[in-house]
Amino acid sequence: MNHGEWIRSEFRKMSEDLGFLFTPREEIDNRLARVRASMRKKEIEALLVVQKMDYYYLSGTTQDALLFVPLEGLPLLLVRRELERAKVESPIDNVVAMKSMRDFPLLIKNHYGRLPGNLGLELDVLPVKDYFRYQELFSSTQFVDSSPIFRDVRKIKSPFEVGLTRMAGNIAKRLYVDARSILKEGMTEIEFGSLLDAVAKRYGHEGLLRVRSLNYEAYSWHVVSGLTGGIVSQSDSPMGGLGLSPAFPVGASRKVIKAHEPILLDMGICYHGYQADQTRMYSIGEMPRKFINAYNACKEIHDAVLEDVRPGADTEALFLKTLILAEKLGYKDSYLGPPGLQTRFIGHGIGLELNELPFLAQGHSTPLEEGMVFAIEPKIVFPGEGGVGLENTLVVTLNGYEILTPTENTIFEV
Amino acid sequence: MNHGEWIRSEFRKMSEDLGFLFTPREEIDNRLARVRASMRKKEIEALLVVQKMDYYYLSGTTQDALLFVPLEGLPLLLVRRELERAKVESPIDNVVAMKSMRDFPLLIKNHYGRLPGNLGLELDVLPVKDYFRYQELFSSTQFVDSSPIFRDVRKIKSPFEVGLTRMAGNIAKRLYVDARSILKEGMTEIEFGSLLDAVAKRYGHEGLLRVRSLNYEAYSWHVVSGLTGGIVSQSDSPMGGLGLSPAFPVGASRKVIKAHEPILLDMGICYHGYQADQTRMYSIGEMPRKFINAYNACKEIHDAVLEDVRPGADTEALFLKTLILAEKLGYKDSYLGPPGLQTRFIGHGIGLELNELPFLAQGHSTPLEEGMVFAIEPKIVFPGEGGVGLENTLVVTLNGYEILTPTENTIFEV
Repeated sequence: MNHGEWIRSEFRKMSEDLGFLFTPREEIDNRLARVRASMRKKEIEALLVVQKMDYYYLSGTTQDALLFVPLEGLPLLLVRRELERAKVESPIDNVVAMKSMRDFPLLIKNHYGRLPGNLGLELDVLPVKDYFRYQELFSSTQFVDSSPIFRDVRKIKSPFEVGLTRMAGNIAKRLYVDARSILKEGMTEIEFGSLLDAVAKRYGHEGLLRVRSLNYEAYSWHVVSGLTGGIVSQSDSPMGGLGLSPAFPVGASRKVIKAHEPILLDMGICYHGYQADQTRMYSIGEMPRKFINAYNACKEIHDAVLEDVRPGADTEALFLKTLILAEKLGYKDSYLGPPGLQTRFIGHGIGLELNELPFLAQGHSTPLEEGMVFAIEPKIVFPGEGGVGLENTLVVTLNGYEILTPTENTIFEV
Repeated sequence: MNHGEWIRSEFRKMSEDLGFLFTPREEIDNRLARVRASMRKKEIEALLVVQKMDYYYLSGTTQDALLFVPLEGLPLLLVRRELERAKVESPIDNVVAMKSMRDFPLLIKNHYGRLPGNLGLELDVLPVKDYFRYQELFSSTQFVDSSPIFRDVRKIKSPFEVGLTRMAGNIAKRLYVDARSILKEGMTEIEFGSLLDAVAKRYGHEGLLRVRSLNYEAYSWHVVSGLTGGIVSQSDSPMGGLGLSPAFPVGASRKVIKAHEPILLDMGICYHGYQADQTRMYSIGEMPRKFINAYNACKEIHDAVLEDVRPGADTEALFLKTLILAEKLGYKDSYLGPPGLQTRFIGHGIGLELNELPFLAQGHSTPLEEGMVFAIEPKIVFPGEGGVGLENTLVVTLNGYEILTPTENTIFEV
């Protein structure tokens, strides 16, 4: 049988039967309209969308492709691999094969009538070598950075996107409940983390989390216990954990989990690309009072942020409020990391990537808007001893917020 | 306790007790010497190493950092996070904190005496936005692409690196033996794959595989069964599988695994960053004769490549030999993918990344050298029915090769 025939005749039904949701045409049209409004304001004639999450957002497919979006006229999806599958997955009408980058200008001319005078590219992630290649191919086109458009448009989630994030949060809830029976004294952190990962995948988690960064890799199994919860590592986070080797120095390690230690489980869940981030504490038997108190402080800080979450609230003010509260509660030197290593954010936008807008952070003053989705994660870290925290993902609603990670806010003692 | 004190006093012993191997100074010195020989030939005064696997290779740490390597003089590791940990992990003597990119030129001047006249950057991965920032900061420095140096130097593995890959291959062997008892009729592909992933992590697998690419993500759980083995997806590989959603359209899916289907398990294992890639076939009860025959053809092609593997053998000739053999065996139209979608490589270099040199591929003619490590992976694909294959990772030795994935080359019928 021919591959294309099989895809055209069998693929859609089979994949839908197995849980695939395809992005509806109306959803894509709305996103395109918002991107175009921003292009018009910035006087950008066309975008060439090169990064996978950006073109997934605008086309519904993550096949290896480039998406050309003119301000006036129809978008064109140029597919390297695999064409027939992209045609099924994407509501974009104009989908063509691109065998070689050499063909690219001609394909644009055939579709758009000319090469655009200026062209937006995501310069925050596009490799320099590719940029030089585009400069050769479009020698009279001016290139501009389109990444602010994507960051800006993608920060407001549609009901469809919130729905997928809610699904991710519900998977997280089932997982965190199951975690109570998976956790056993004597397991290593990575055993616990990888069993959780397997359960999460059974519930629909896609395994990989995505971060918009050259070097910052996301992973699921962020499990720290006792003193590994006091270790800072390569990421801009209050605690990195020990990890597995110098090549992977974050998250779960081969440390054995003991009774009465604070065990912090910070796992992101991904469903159809949409991520929900969540942290809860576990312990085998009761954890020492010091950590319970610190957890309660995190809970108080978490609740104090929630109190103010609504459209119009200032993101930097929310962060600064937590600094003051943490100091008042006696955690000035351990809030969000040890002295000298304290991070300067209490929340991060989340969606197709882990580091989206808005940031509830020092130096990031912006009003919250309806449809913003972010995680808030107060954490308290004691080097050489351990760390605690609480994290939820929420969406800003007309009058306040909705929690998308509905797991009970408590220490799970097993 | 202070975080730095804890790292300086406890971290090394704790992490070594939990399985961390730190890259020896001599190993780093040898790698630096090889990189510098290449810099001298290309008249590059200094490198600024920006990509995590490149600076892990030359410094032994993956903390968030930049590595400055002058042709003459000592390297300097500039660490964003976390400084004390980088100092323990890396044999590099000059390790400093870098709070902000603004401090960067001054730190270089203090260390090197001046800003270099030219500076190599990995332009194949460096984002354009960062490049513009470096141009601002080093306004009289000329920038050149250092990625060919890294690709070239890293393609020859040291005994230390081969040792880590051998460890990865041994983990793969234990995993593939265990897979026989994990596999059960009625499991979904993702259940099987995620349980394998959990077992692999217990044996030392680090979970993430790395690819040098903007959009190409690696993952472990490449499990396809029956007709999902006939589906091509976003990657340059003979079969992509169905995957879990349009956001993650590769590898294991929610398809239920049935008796008598060809089940292909293509999993990479990563140990201290070094990856071994391996494919074996499984079936529950016997698989149809068509697939057994195709597997035997893959085995014959695999063995025919091995026959010729030794220093001096031409990589393109090895590929072309397999094309001829596949045609002779009757698989012209299904070898390495369905018609129109057939890939044009039989092997890919592997190490810290899945897509290293050499490529045993059409248009890639180069002599094999001692110390090259690559995977060979003949595969045969029938759209709508399934796919089969065999894959091993090997190192080229003085007189031939050593297989680094010593799992038995057979169909595992359970």
